[in-house]
This record gives sequence, C-alpha cells and structure tokens, in this order.
Amino acid sequence: MKPRVQKVFQNLDPAPDAIVVANAVDPHLDQTFFYLFDVPAGLFEGSLAIAHPDGKLDVLTAALEAETAREAAKKDPNVTIHVVGREETDSEAKKLLGGAKKVGLNYRELTHEWFNRLDKTFDGTEWVDVSNAIRRARVTKDPNEIQLLRKAGEIGSKVGREIPGILKAGMTELELAAEMEYRMNRHGASGRSFSTIVAFGPHSAEPHYSPAETKLKAGDSIVCDFGAYYRRYASDITRSFHFGRRDDEMKKVHETVEAAQKAALEAVKPGVPAKEVHLAAARVIDASPWKGRLTHGVGHSIGLVVHDGWGYGATVEDPLEVGMAITVEPGIYLPGHGGVRIEDDIVVTKNGYEFLTTAPREYLEVAA
Amino acid sequence: MKPRVQKVFQNLDPAPDAIVVANAVDPHLDQTFFYLFDVPAGLFEGSLAIAHPDGKLDVLTAALEAETAREAAKKDPNVTIHVVGREETDSEAKKLLGGAKKVGLNYRELTHEWFNRLDKTFDGTEWVDVSNAIRRARVTKDPNEIQLLRKAGEIGSKVGREIPGILKAGMTELELAAEMEYRMNRHGASGRSFSTIVAFGPHSAEPHYSPAETKLKAGDSIVCDFGAYYRRYASDITRSFHFGRRDDEMKKVHETVEAAQKAALEAVKPGVPAKEVHLAAARVIDASPWKGRLTHGVGHSIGLVVHDGWGYGATVEDPLEVGMAITVEPGIYLPGHGGVRIEDDIVVTKNGYEFLTTAPREYLEVAA
Repeated sequence: MKPRVQKVFQNLDPAPDAIVVANAVDPHLDQTFFYLFDVPAGLFEGSLAIAHPDGKLDVLTAALEAETAREAAKKDPNVTIHVVGREETDSEAKKLLGGAKKVGLNYRELTHEWFNRLDKTFDGTEWVDVSNAIRRARVTKDPNEIQLLRKAGEIGSKVGREIPGILKAGMTELELAAEMEYRMNRHGASGRSFSTIVAFGPHSAEPHYSPAETKLKAGDSIVCDFGAYYRRYASDITRSFHFGRRDDEMKKVHETVEAAQKAALEAVKPGVPAKEVHLAAARVIDASPWKGRLTHGVGHSIGLVVHDGWGYGATVEDPLEVGMAITVEPGIYLPGHGGVRIEDDIVVTKNGYEFLTTAPREYLEVAA
Repeated sequence: MKPRVQKVFQNLDPAPDAIVVANAVDPHLDQTFFYLFDVPAGLFEGSLAIAHPDGKLDVLTAALEAETAREAAKKDPNVTIHVVGREETDSEAKKLLGGAKKVGLNYRELTHEWFNRLDKTFDGTEWVDVSNAIRRARVTKDPNEIQLLRKAGEIGSKVGREIPGILKAGMTELELAAEMEYRMNRHGASGRSFSTIVAFGPHSAEPHYSPAETKLKAGDSIVCDFGAYYRRYASDITRSFHFGRRDDEMKKVHETVEAAQKAALEAVKPGVPAKEVHLAAARVIDASPWKGRLTHGVGHSIGLVVHDGWGYGATVEDPLEVGMAITVEPGIYLPGHGGVRIEDDIVVTKNGYEFLTTAPREYLEVAA
C-alpha cells in the first residue's frame, strides 16, 4: 500500500516542498489530519501534521493526547510525534519545515484564522491550495480504509435488518431513531455518522426530514437513513418499509426504486463517468408513472465523513476509479403521501463493485 | 431581549457595514449562523447569513432547506430568507451587501476557501475579523438560550441519576456509554453533544479517555462524562461512582473533589475574574493529600457547542458576567489507581448562579 502522504503528493505537479494540515477547535478539524495520521481516538485540537514529499509525516500535538499519538505512531515508521506546548507550536513547525519555500494547505478545511497564523509565522512562504489533490487522494480508499468502511457498513446493515422487528404502532420517529442508534453502538459503532433520519407517513416524502414526535400508524411509509462511525470511518444506509395494510401505489414505487438502484449498480465500473450511474437510475424512474420524482443526485463519496468531498448527479463527468467508496441511493418522493429511498454503500472494484452494506432491500409490509 | 445581531454589533467600535457568516460543508459550519438565525433543524451547508447594524438578518439558502428556513423566519420579523441556486449565491450576496465597504467575518469558523471566494466576489472590500465580538456575544446567553441549555442539562441529569441502576459487573465501558446515549435520546436529546467518556478502574485517572472493551469489576472507580444536544444547545455533565467494595482513599478523593466544586461554585459572582473560580477549587485540592492532582482548567463556556469558545484556569482574568453558561468541573486523578471528576453546568446570575444540571454528586458505592 502506498503511504497516504505520497498518494497526496503524486497528485501535485509541481509538488510543494511540504504540506501543512492544521486542526482548529472541534468541529473545525481537518479530517485530512486523520487520513494522514492513522490514530484511532482523540480530537487533536490545535494539532498540526506536516507532510513531506518523501512520505514522512511530522505530527505536533499537545501533552493531553501525546500517549494516544505515540501509540499510533508505533505502527508507522514514517510518523514522528512532537509533543509541544501551545506556545511552542509555531516555532517547532518552523524548525520542521526548514527551508520550505512553497507549502501546500488544505484551504477547504483550514480556518481563515489558522491561515493567518501560519502566514504570519512563515513570513515569505508561498502558499498553494492543495484541497483538490487531497480530495483526489482521499476519494479512493486503500485496503485498510475499505476494511473499516466494511465494518461500519456491517454495523448499519445489522440495524437495517433489525428495524422491522422494532416497529410498533404508536412509537415516535425519535423513539425509533434512538433505538437504531443504540443498536449501532451495541454492534460496535463509536457513534452515528450523521443525524439519523426516521420519517413516517407523508414525512417520508421529504428527503432531509428530521425525526420528531410523529407516531407510527398503519398505512405509513417509513424511510430510515442512518449510519455508523467505526474507527473514524462512516457508513450511510437507507431502508424503506411499509407499516400495516398494503398501499398498492407505494408497493410499486418501492419496486421502481429497487429497479432503479439495480440499474445504477449495473452501470458501476472503473472509467465510467459518474453521471452514468445517476442517469441509469433516473431512466428507470422517468420511464415509470413517477417521472421526475427523483429530486436529488444518486450518490456521494463516503469515508472519514459521510459526505466525503464529492457527489454525483446528472452532469458529473468524473470517472469512477477502483477503490472509490460511494453511495447509490435513488428515491421517489410523493409529497403528501410518502416516499421510498434505498441506499447502499459500495466500493468500486476492477470488474464492478463490492457491497459494503447489505440487509434486504425489497418491499416489506410489517404487520401493524 | 436584544436581538442577537445587535448584541454582536455592540461589541464592535467602529462597527463594520455588515457581517457575513458563511457555512461550508458539514462539519465546517459556523455555529454563529445558528446563533443569529434561530432555526431548529437543518445543516444549511453553503448558506450565508448577512447581519446588518440595524439588527436585520438576510439568510441565503438552497431550495433543499428553504421550507425549514421560512418556517423559522416567521417567528422573527428581522429575518429575510432568500432562496438561491448554488451559482446565484455570490451575486445575491453582492446585491444584499450593497455599498458595504468594511465587512466583518468570523475568521475563527470560516474556511480559508470561503474567505478566498468572498474576497474574489467582493473585490476591494475591507475585511475585519469579528471573531472576538462574536465570541463575546455568544458567551452570555439570552433567556431563550438559557431555556434550551436548561432542557439539555435536565436530559443529562436524568441519565446521571439513572447510571447507578444500570451498572453491572462485566459490562464494558462501550456498553454503558451506548446505554447512556440511548437514554439521553429517549429523554428528548437530538443526540450526544460530544463523544461520551466512560472510564472504569485505572482508566478513570485519564481525563480524556475513550471508552473501550474494559469490563466493570468490583473495586473500580467510574467516571462518566457526557452531554446532550437539545435543539442545538449542549449540556456537559460528569458523575463519578464507585463500584462494589469500599476504597477508603477514593472515598476521600471523592469528598475532596465535591468540596472543591462547592468552593468553586461559591466563588461564582458577576465581576469575579474567572481564575478565582478555578483557584477556589485548586486551593481545596492542594490543601489535601492530593496536591497538584487537578491537571486541567476547572471549566469552559457551553452553548451551541460543548466548548463554546472560552475556558478558564489559573490565569484567566476575564470577569464572569450575568448570563454566562459555564461548566465547573474539578477532578483528582491518581494514575494507575483511579480518578474522580464532578462537573455541572451553571448560568451566572445577578447574585451567584443557577444550576443547569442536577443529579446527586456525593460518593456512592453501587453494590457489585
């Protein structure tokens, strides 16, 4: 496996003399810090990572998380930990950067305050924005990352399989969401990877609904969109169910979404422009009675965050690459009535894809 | 209640012509957006808030969250919602900023990428860093905010009271954390406000420990540090317990921490330099056999995030003000043996303080 530092540098021509990644205060942390430095726990507020073209990585951190950092660095001979007091960070960084004239920064995840601090410390340095090189490196996953994504996906899938057994008339969306998150944690998640969506009845027609006090009743469509963090890596899965008596229209809607997802998945191959995956799903939906009811792009990359820097819809030409981890999530939304979305995480392989999430996808009527 | 926009501007002399708050992509959202625009749900990625010295607020948002935004704006005549496509954001912002020459930005929570985008769009504008004015406004809470903090505190307190009944020999730290988070959600939280700390035995001597597979056994000290989000506002509470047979030293440690917290709370009054609160706790600990075992500052502000921009230790001169919401959390840590921390959230009042969190604080031996 190519070290991640080198994976970033190979996207830069000409390469800068170094790359600095700076964490501000939570939530303003650059996840690239955790991409380059594989440390399982800790926030590392105010910490710096300095990446060099030879693949070496210097990590500047405070005493608070020094032990965690040292433990993680043992696994990687390229990483050197420097424990510094708050006031020493700038001078130590200066020492480690030596004569670097041109330094790359991740403008996309760096606060402007940190930029100004660096600009003042390294007076005369030429800064270059390496956000795109970082995104490109992060968007294709290495085997270690895929293993963690698989584990995060398994946790989500387990809960996906359990949901039908949890549903009870009268329970609220928030109650179901709490139960789902509890089960993810019990299955080994370190937390949810985003705010769980549970939508009952007409709410299921709102793709970004927030769960509230709505009670489940017979005849409701149900959309559950959720995901787990496992050792910093995210999963993102959506399953749709029907509660109680059959709704013929929603059954057909469900089957159409399922067919749309299958068509999208069949389009997944390295080299294929991402829009083709979206369009394959859209074509199925637009050939159905629910033409135009797919109101969002069919997927996005996943990794250290649930929306890991890249999404695709009808116009995105970027080709799929081996190792990309993405969601495939078509949906049909009938305002005032209900909606269905089916979402899985996959990783692009040489010949197609591998599912990171499982759990049944087909139409299911849960007895009310 | 003074509108929040005006509360920020009153900290600026001379005042800029406007303030722009820009959200990037989650987690790089400026919580000030949600301070100025009181909207209960939604991420508002890529959205802008433009605050004017007359107290008016323009919110630029995408169609996805337009309904949520419009609904929230109904409650506040000072807010105007502008629904814009991704390409129109810059031109619409330009229109709304009119002839503004000097514009304030929150450098602390703005990405450098967004700064460059604004700098390009508003060529010739003079930017001023208003981070400190924003922090000063946000650090004292208005009655609406206190109400939400109280609710978040109640949720944490309920779980604090329930923990002794959950403890069982053999359960892991992660299992207890999952159970606590589940209960917070069931009590009305929209999620945890930070990664729950559950530490058994010697781990309880590590203030920032991450829960793992350690199993609870008789004789263990237990530290549980956790908090809830309620409508975007955070709580942060720590309770310490003892499992099974008495440990005379840890009992005395517990009583010392409790006394230290009481002393710290007695020091809380408007006008008092924050360090006095810290020092009151430190004096109690340093007069005990565990001199020097308080290894962190005694508290920090809480609000829209759990560390809401300000913390205090032995050297912080900033005076307490009416409406400040802060934690008071002394601890004693005995490496290799165990630790005790007691943490409550309070709001500073005219004559002292009000507890936002409750739940018993005294030494408790839970039967193993």
